[in-house]
Amino acid sequence: MSASNTTTPKRSYTFQATIDQIGPQVVAGHGVYISVEKDGQVYDGILDGITGAAVGALGWGDEEAFEIIVKAARNSTYSFPSLVSNKSSEELAKFYIENSPKGAFSAALWCGSGSESNENALRIIRQYWLERQLPNKIKLISRENSYHGFTLGAQSISWNPRVQPFEPYLMNRAVTNIKIPCAYSYRFKKNTETEEDYAKRLIAETEKIILDNDPDTIAALTVETLPGSSLGTCPPPKGYLKGLRDLCNKYDLLFHLDEVMCGTGRCNPYGKLNCWEGFLEPCDAPDIQTVGKTLGSGYITIAGVLIGPKIRDAFVHGSNSVVGGHTYASHAFNCAAALGIQEKIKRDHLALNIFNMGSRMGQMLRETVMATNNIAGDVRGIGGFWSIEFVQDRITKKPFDYSLNVGVQFKAICFENKLAVMGMPGNPDGSCGDRALLAPSFTITENNIEEIVKRVVKSVNELTQKLRNEGRF
Amino acid sequence: MSASNTTTPKRSYTFQATIDQIGPQVVAGHGVYISVEKDGQVYDGILDGITGAAVGALGWGDEEAFEIIVKAARNSTYSFPSLVSNKSSEELAKFYIENSPKGAFSAALWCGSGSESNENALRIIRQYWLERQLPNKIKLISRENSYHGFTLGAQSISWNPRVQPFEPYLMNRAVTNIKIPCAYSYRFKKNTETEEDYAKRLIAETEKIILDNDPDTIAALTVETLPGSSLGTCPPPKGYLKGLRDLCNKYDLLFHLDEVMCGTGRCNPYGKLNCWEGFLEPCDAPDIQTVGKTLGSGYITIAGVLIGPKIRDAFVHGSNSVVGGHTYASHAFNCAAALGIQEKIKRDHLALNIFNMGSRMGQMLRETVMATNNIAGDVRGIGGFWSIEFVQDRITKKPFDYSLNVGVQFKAICFENKLAVMGMPGNPDGSCGDRALLAPSFTITENNIEEIVKRVVKSVNELTQKLRNEGRF
Repeated sequence: MSASNTTTPKRSYTFQATIDQIGPQVVAGHGVYISVEKDGQVYDGILDGITGAAVGALGWGDEEAFEIIVKAARNSTYSFPSLVSNKSSEELAKFYIENSPKGAFSAALWCGSGSESNENALRIIRQYWLERQLPNKIKLISRENSYHGFTLGAQSISWNPRVQPFEPYLMNRAVTNIKIPCAYSYRFKKNTETEEDYAKRLIAETEKIILDNDPDTIAALTVETLPGSSLGTCPPPKGYLKGLRDLCNKYDLLFHLDEVMCGTGRCNPYGKLNCWEGFLEPCDAPDIQTVGKTLGSGYITIAGVLIGPKIRDAFVHGSNSVVGGHTYASHAFNCAAALGIQEKIKRDHLALNIFNMGSRMGQMLRETVMATNNIAGDVRGIGGFWSIEFVQDRITKKPFDYSLNVGVQFKAICFENKLAVMGMPGNPDGSCGDRALLAPSFTITENNIEEIVKRVVKSVNELTQKLRNEGRF
Repeated sequence: MSASNTTTPKRSYTFQATIDQIGPQVVAGHGVYISVEKDGQVYDGILDGITGAAVGALGWGDEEAFEIIVKAARNSTYSFPSLVSNKSSEELAKFYIENSPKGAFSAALWCGSGSESNENALRIIRQYWLERQLPNKIKLISRENSYHGFTLGAQSISWNPRVQPFEPYLMNRAVTNIKIPCAYSYRFKKNTETEEDYAKRLIAETEKIILDNDPDTIAALTVETLPGSSLGTCPPPKGYLKGLRDLCNKYDLLFHLDEVMCGTGRCNPYGKLNCWEGFLEPCDAPDIQTVGKTLGSGYITIAGVLIGPKIRDAFVHGSNSVVGGHTYASHAFNCAAALGIQEKIKRDHLALNIFNMGSRMGQMLRETVMATNNIAGDVRGIGGFWSIEFVQDRITKKPFDYSLNVGVQFKAICFENKLAVMGMPGNPDGSCGDRALLAPSFTITENNIEEIVKRVVKSVNELTQKLRNEGRF
């Protein structure tokens, strides 16, 4: 700890987190390390295990990213794309499409956040069925324990305890709240089942829900390829995503994958863009896909919607137009900067690096955290995106009481051990335990992951000891 | 016209506007002029009368804005503000609050678009009533002919023909679709009424709607201080906004002003930030206000929510926290750049310039456009934001048939006359005619406004002649 000043926290002017106090503030970032000021002291050398919220693909203070931004700013002029568009948005769309499996996508739309990308996806799904003159296909199927964004449309297809207070402002629940089970092997795969058995059971349950809701009135099925904050990086069991794709084909539903958190290079085994490529053949690509986070790597604020040929063709043969748009859609500067960042990630094979280093980190976490008797119940993830779920007992998998806020406590202990993680609360009904999420920069080295694992293990053991001393379990 | 190349339009990869073709693209911008490539030709020297969509306060290619961005990029590190925030967001909030009337606002939240700002406002309104333990205050009152954003929550409190296809995905209509009349003097003020009479009638109608809907179940009333794209800059009649404020006090509703399009310097008579300052005393400030557009002047993508002391205090004395947030909320780089841009606007008195120059432009438009017999029925606006409504007949005010797309035709003719405007369609039911919107850069000079007026008049007369020749009226 280096105490650079010791003033007491001043009045906060921002309306977020704890309202009347200035919380921790990032004051610098270099590579995989950040400096954070908290209560008037600056803490240097904090290893960033989460890059904000699975955002910072390049790490921080990247000199080339800075040059990319300067060039993008110099060469961009704002326009309102419904009237006058720009070349950068076309180039970024072309790049994403050409670096995805051939034939998967044929158009893209750029917007300002993952929430907006899912809001746009819902609008596009609606207009798609109008273009096909099937206006009654309106119901939206999504999963229990899911998160698709902070805006009210995106919250309406989510399910987690933090949505509940906003229930009065969600979309028509008869139409938008058809929920299928989440794919959560740790808690819900039976010991007698193989992964494939579990996937088959989930698909059978999903098919029953589709049939119970009249497929002719269902518009789309939305799932996170790899769930993020709401469930914690549970890999889809073998055959599960393919089973969903087949159901969508069978009943003529649009298949929407949300890769805002897990996509754009974070979890692709071949060092490419999409997480689903590890699970689906190109011919089974989603009809529509939402992305964000690592697209701009935190340097600029951008997200997007990838459109498959099935949807684009229906529009082109119909009205051939999208009515209206966001003021900041296809923002030239954001698109130019994102393109530069993605080109650098591709050139330097950083998506392959994070897949390999992240997989190794996950393996090391599993081996070390689970080797001793502590509160870690499960270590799971893919490539550059991992979670640890905390339980009172590894055999019964009993979560901690919700009110103990074990996820948030873990985050605080990690911070003391100079590691930034995301700590998420469990569900009050016990259907999911507290979790810590890890999503480091794509640039991490072997030394970095060894250090992350060391600090995680130390923090897990310290929190275990603390909770034991307090008689919490 | 300078034909720089003559290639035919290539396949478009973006999913916006006309899908299968590359539409017009901005290729450069300098001050109040832009260069646009269309069908393979570059058109230089287009006078930007609309700055995208009422966005570009500084005009384009501003060298100091570029330096502000470079400095912001150099000094910012991304963080997820629910976990770790930053200093720029605090500084921008402090600036906005201190440059608004004393006591009006006490906190601010920064997000990525006007839509997101209104989505956040709805979430804050909901949580406010939960903090006050009045969970049944949920209904949302808003106006006919209004626009509050592109996301589904924001669309749910809007009303315009472009919302209708998305009806199945709007929020619970019993709760969110309570509509009061718009304040639209041109069509709905009776000839026998003064402005004050009309305002009193609107307030009486609004009070009746409040009473009919049980005030104890109403959460908030949302209006655009000066409506933008959906109605076209109809100034609130004298006493109207004060009447709404008083009703909100009387029935304990939150008063929400949407200034995404009209605020942040565009329409303030004193060269300050908020449009409402021309109509309300500081003690009658809104409880919550949304802003965007000129905040980042198009260089970066940012919007925000201003929070009055009534709301902040209820939160602080309640849970003292806002749960969750956008990944890109309070984005350090965007906030730092917006702060630099706003400081420049303040230093150079640009808000006063646009108010004075814009008012003069409006006056000149009124005098010249209305001086001859043409399709212009009304010229209206405030400061830097003006509209022309087109009609078949100035006496009957009969709009053109919706299918003629007169607003879009006008935009196209203006483009040929080297002027960028926004052309909006009328309502199919005839309740509002086609409109053209003007919202130039804050930096415009007398020469610029003379040129804008000249090109508008020429375009109005050309379109009038064309429609006459076609026998449209």
